[in-house]
Amino acid sequence: MWNGSVLNNQENATSAIEYWRKIMSDKKSFIPISFNKSEIDGGFWASRIEINRSVTIPIEFKQCKDTGRIDAFKLDWKLGHEPVPHIFWDSDVAKWIEAASYSLVTHPDPDLDSLLDEVIALISSAQQPDGYLNTHFSSVEPDKRWTNLRDCHELYCAGHMIEAAVAHFQATGKRSLLDVLCRYADYINEVFGIGENQIHGYCGHEEIELALIKLYRVTGKREYLELSIYFIEERGKKPYYFDIEAVNRGELPSTHQHGSYSYMQADKPVRTLDSVEGHSVRAMYLYSAMVDLSIELSDESLFVTCERLWNHLHSKHLYITGGIGSSAKNEGFTNDYNLPNETAYCETCASIGLVYWNHRMLQKRCDCRYSDVIERALYNNILSSISLNGDRFFYANPLSAFAGTDPYDCDSHKINPSAFYQRKEWFGCACCPPNLARLLASLGEYIYSESDDALAVHLYVQGEAKMHINGTDMAITQQTQYPWDGVILLKLAMEQSIDFTLRLRIPSWCTKYKVIINGKECNSQGTVEFGYFSIRSNWKPGDEISLNLDMPVMRVYSHPDVRENIGCVALQRGPIVYCIEQADNSVPVRRIVLQKNTEIISEFNHDLLNGVVTLHGNALSAQVNGWEGILYSNEQPVYDHYNFTAIPYYAWANRKPGEMKVWIPELGEQVLDSLKSD
Amino acid sequence: MWNGSVLNNQENATSAIEYWRKIMSDKKSFIPISFNKSEIDGGFWASRIEINRSVTIPIEFKQCKDTGRIDAFKLDWKLGHEPVPHIFWDSDVAKWIEAASYSLVTHPDPDLDSLLDEVIALISSAQQPDGYLNTHFSSVEPDKRWTNLRDCHELYCAGHMIEAAVAHFQATGKRSLLDVLCRYADYINEVFGIGENQIHGYCGHEEIELALIKLYRVTGKREYLELSIYFIEERGKKPYYFDIEAVNRGELPSTHQHGSYSYMQADKPVRTLDSVEGHSVRAMYLYSAMVDLSIELSDESLFVTCERLWNHLHSKHLYITGGIGSSAKNEGFTNDYNLPNETAYCETCASIGLVYWNHRMLQKRCDCRYSDVIERALYNNILSSISLNGDRFFYANPLSAFAGTDPYDCDSHKINPSAFYQRKEWFGCACCPPNLARLLASLGEYIYSESDDALAVHLYVQGEAKMHINGTDMAITQQTQYPWDGVILLKLAMEQSIDFTLRLRIPSWCTKYKVIINGKECNSQGTVEFGYFSIRSNWKPGDEISLNLDMPVMRVYSHPDVRENIGCVALQRGPIVYCIEQADNSVPVRRIVLQKNTEIISEFNHDLLNGVVTLHGNALSAQVNGWEGILYSNEQPVYDHYNFTAIPYYAWANRKPGEMKVWIPELGEQVLDSLKSD
Repeated sequence: MWNGSVLNNQENATSAIEYWRKIMSDKKSFIPISFNKSEIDGGFWASRIEINRSVTIPIEFKQCKDTGRIDAFKLDWKLGHEPVPHIFWDSDVAKWIEAASYSLVTHPDPDLDSLLDEVIALISSAQQPDGYLNTHFSSVEPDKRWTNLRDCHELYCAGHMIEAAVAHFQATGKRSLLDVLCRYADYINEVFGIGENQIHGYCGHEEIELALIKLYRVTGKREYLELSIYFIEERGKKPYYFDIEAVNRGELPSTHQHGSYSYMQADKPVRTLDSVEGHSVRAMYLYSAMVDLSIELSDESLFVTCERLWNHLHSKHLYITGGIGSSAKNEGFTNDYNLPNETAYCETCASIGLVYWNHRMLQKRCDCRYSDVIERALYNNILSSISLNGDRFFYANPLSAFAGTDPYDCDSHKINPSAFYQRKEWFGCACCPPNLARLLASLGEYIYSESDDALAVHLYVQGEAKMHINGTDMAITQQTQYPWDGVILLKLAMEQSIDFTLRLRIPSWCTKYKVIINGKECNSQGTVEFGYFSIRSNWKPGDEISLNLDMPVMRVYSHPDVRENIGCVALQRGPIVYCIEQADNSVPVRRIVLQKNTEIISEFNHDLLNGVVTLHGNALSAQVNGWEGILYSNEQPVYDHYNFTAIPYYAWANRKPGEMKVWIPELGEQVLDSLKSD
Repeated sequence: MWNGSVLNNQENATSAIEYWRKIMSDKKSFIPISFNKSEIDGGFWASRIEINRSVTIPIEFKQCKDTGRIDAFKLDWKLGHEPVPHIFWDSDVAKWIEAASYSLVTHPDPDLDSLLDEVIALISSAQQPDGYLNTHFSSVEPDKRWTNLRDCHELYCAGHMIEAAVAHFQATGKRSLLDVLCRYADYINEVFGIGENQIHGYCGHEEIELALIKLYRVTGKREYLELSIYFIEERGKKPYYFDIEAVNRGELPSTHQHGSYSYMQADKPVRTLDSVEGHSVRAMYLYSAMVDLSIELSDESLFVTCERLWNHLHSKHLYITGGIGSSAKNEGFTNDYNLPNETAYCETCASIGLVYWNHRMLQKRCDCRYSDVIERALYNNILSSISLNGDRFFYANPLSAFAGTDPYDCDSHKINPSAFYQRKEWFGCACCPPNLARLLASLGEYIYSESDDALAVHLYVQGEAKMHINGTDMAITQQTQYPWDGVILLKLAMEQSIDFTLRLRIPSWCTKYKVIINGKECNSQGTVEFGYFSIRSNWKPGDEISLNLDMPVMRVYSHPDVRENIGCVALQRGPIVYCIEQADNSVPVRRIVLQKNTEIISEFNHDLLNGVVTLHGNALSAQVNGWEGILYSNEQPVYDHYNFTAIPYYAWANRKPGEMKVWIPELGEQVLDSLKSD
């Protein structure tokens, strides 16, 4: 086995990836083209990633610094001092390191590199002699280490630190943080396991499981993989570890605030899970690790479980925006088809976790269903979570907004009734902003996958990627204005021609497309496998593939059991879900009603919201004349004609606060025409 | 001035009412025919009042006893004992006494009479030498008396005790509790007021204001009226007393959990109130006292304020069921037109308070708008709050129910996702059940009002009432199956003919009616004043007046700004609002859609839900065939024909738990016909 310990520079970091590539290839799964091989150089995403680099990442560091999260690693907290290092502060810093590391690859920056070194040195200094590393438990509650895995996020923080270390190593080749985290992981490996003197537990908030697999993949140390297996397999077994642990703390297990351990996917063994339940971020991180394990161990049963969970989520719990987790109460899943709009929690981290999970599913099976979900989440729920300026964030991403509504339903008795839900500069629980930053900074990794003799294009994003197909180096470039139009031009560059299968994702929203190779339409020469147009060829240097995806405005309806959306329609064009927002509309959004079968036109607006395609058409607006002083009437409202404007959902709340709606009532006699004759 | 202190028996209790009648007559307002002059002897209400007497009142005593509320008056609580007498426990016992007292009048019961004596003796024993009477502050926090008027409900409890004392005195003629409460009121009168050594404050939860006016009316002691005036006039003045008091406790005023004092209608002087805001029960009790004062002082400005508040509530905040207060967060009012259905708080006490307020407005001006609200609340929200068996209660009365929904949105992280909101046996905060019991036990009082030369019939309820019109004793009997049909037969009995105006309420839902006097149609002989058909006559013994109210099934629509109800319709027949409940319907309620202009028929079902009129008709049911595994589609749902059944809203949740909806989506091309031509 390849020994990760010899790695000490960028080349070796690269060879770690090569090593993983080889393993995956043996297992017949795809592997992503890594963030450090895939550059985004224009179009829709380049400017957003530049804002992420130049605005968001610096702001997030400043917040971590100003709020004490960085300095907590000095371990100089004293009783009575404020603020008290919080149990999950370390994870915020870790995600920032991860984001900053990815960013260094696409945009070398000596100052950021030095800042990272500085922060890592501080972190390193906080490591305990036995390898333990956690600011809260080292400085605030040193006697409580590992006493409350259920609630205290220790292994979760360790997991994020490990991900940061792996990213920093892959980005810079430096082992400074990686070595610290290997020592911590070695220590955790001593503490947890089946041995008599080991803790037979696992974390209430999943994360370390996927992190250990990443660590295994760069170090090759199988014990990290095995520890991940242990955490995953132990989860949900009876007697519940969380019960035992609670009793040890002198608490009644039943006092757990969320009632059931399904909140943390720990009510039954993972292979028996058959529905998405509980806290949605936790679920996504667990499922991600389960797919990783399924690949590593060639364990189909784990993949089958994930498929079952995926089907449940996709058919009953996924918002049209790619948001998941409808309730603030449990930050998670509720009942099937219960998808309220005003109070939709749709946590940013949950949608990001959904991307992580589906990205892993996609490597296991190159199936458009997974890339569709990635794209849905990315262009809608996830992008909505950050202001266009890159400096403000949503934690929850509701699908409609009215004065006084707030998806944090249970947080406060003090919601200002005249205020609209708006993005914030930071949060006490700040998991979302740095999670977004690390996703955007590594977005290149989500575009392509390679296998031994195939290249799959999952996302249409302008840029260039380098890869090694069938033994030969190759580069692929994409030119596209996607998602604003559906024309994508791909060019291949290599020294010599290569035999491989090119797989081009045909998004599920697209019903008409054309593939043109070197000027010649080739639809009939390929086959569609799992939603990918697949064409095997002896590809030559300079080959040009043009994909034209038809991108009309679509009206989308919900399953009839989504009771909030009965009689409502959503508008979508390409991957972009639209909303009507007050700033563009002269009548109150709440009064706007669409008509069946009216034409809706799209047009690109250069100067609006950093450039967006807007939708326009003839709609109706309910008249309130005649309703003065009247709340109920035997006459139904009368409507006026009204020309509406809709904007991409992700761009809402970037102007004057006002009403917003994704699901819009739709009226029309056609409903009756659809009535089955008896 | 008549001296209340000479009263010591039932006759004198009656003469107290006579005294008030005289005052009111001088002031040209109506006064209600008292509960002890108005008997309900059949039809819709008699059986409900009998259940209230035989089931609800005994159960509520048992709950008060079992939970420690009664024994708290022993004042033997010791540190560490559970339960700790709660700050508003006294009010629950007080409302039970009030209910039991009213009940004694319509159904003499020596055992209940003795039980009341026993409880009153215990209460009397808890009175402190200075007159103070409060179980919590006498036994748990004796040093905190009057230190937190904002949150601690001391004067609120005193108010309910006073109401109980007045009711007990009116019902039995016994002064046992009245004397205790007069002493307490005298003490409060010493403690509060403009004097240098007096507290310049008022209660966070209004109630004592209306109670003191009741006490004034039975005792004739003007200082009680003046103290009420003080509490009302002082409210909302700056600097805020609640700020001063908080500082005295060493707290920051801004830490008040509800942010603004509008929560307790104390942000500005009462005459400047122009919108219904805050906690809805508190608002109703304050507004009730304001109308009382307006009558007592002939102060039109208070009535004008109440009219302004009434218009705001009625046009923007009243649920179709007569519920008010849409949010559990503040137990109160939110934004205009914000009337969510699943999370509708619609507290039982708030609707009862709405009845109290409108009943007072109605005495000031005999206007059908007020009696319409009383009737709407009574037959819908209020009656929904108790099971048909009389043994279970709703605190909140939502307008739709689905698995996992609960209007107590913020109460718990543990809502069982598969459970349906159901009535409970009791509550930690048990204000609602005894409030309902006292309203039902005194319902007779809401049917008629008299003035010098007029008799107004507000509610159509079978029974007999005695009154004194234009100097002559008279009795009126009503025979009716109302609300199931609109035929009401009134008969007059007196020694000699009397000149007076008979005012018969024509409910606002009724567009066609017939008045027949002694067999002769008389519509043209009367005039309609403020919604009352008014006919002046020299009425003779044995005169028979028949009122036939046309009672078709109505489709009701909401103001277009009630965003939850866009495209939805509610069904109403007479005063009864309907819902579709799962128990009667073979397809899931969430999939049922009504069609415009289809016939809806009504029929009386003797054996269903203690006898109700149900509604039936042709509706649609959304097909889910073809949606397996699909959450979103470009095709809208297809519908099947379906024959629906709707039941009175008040009767829901008395059978197998299941889905329920008041507002039902309605489809039809007619909407487009209503489009204004451009």
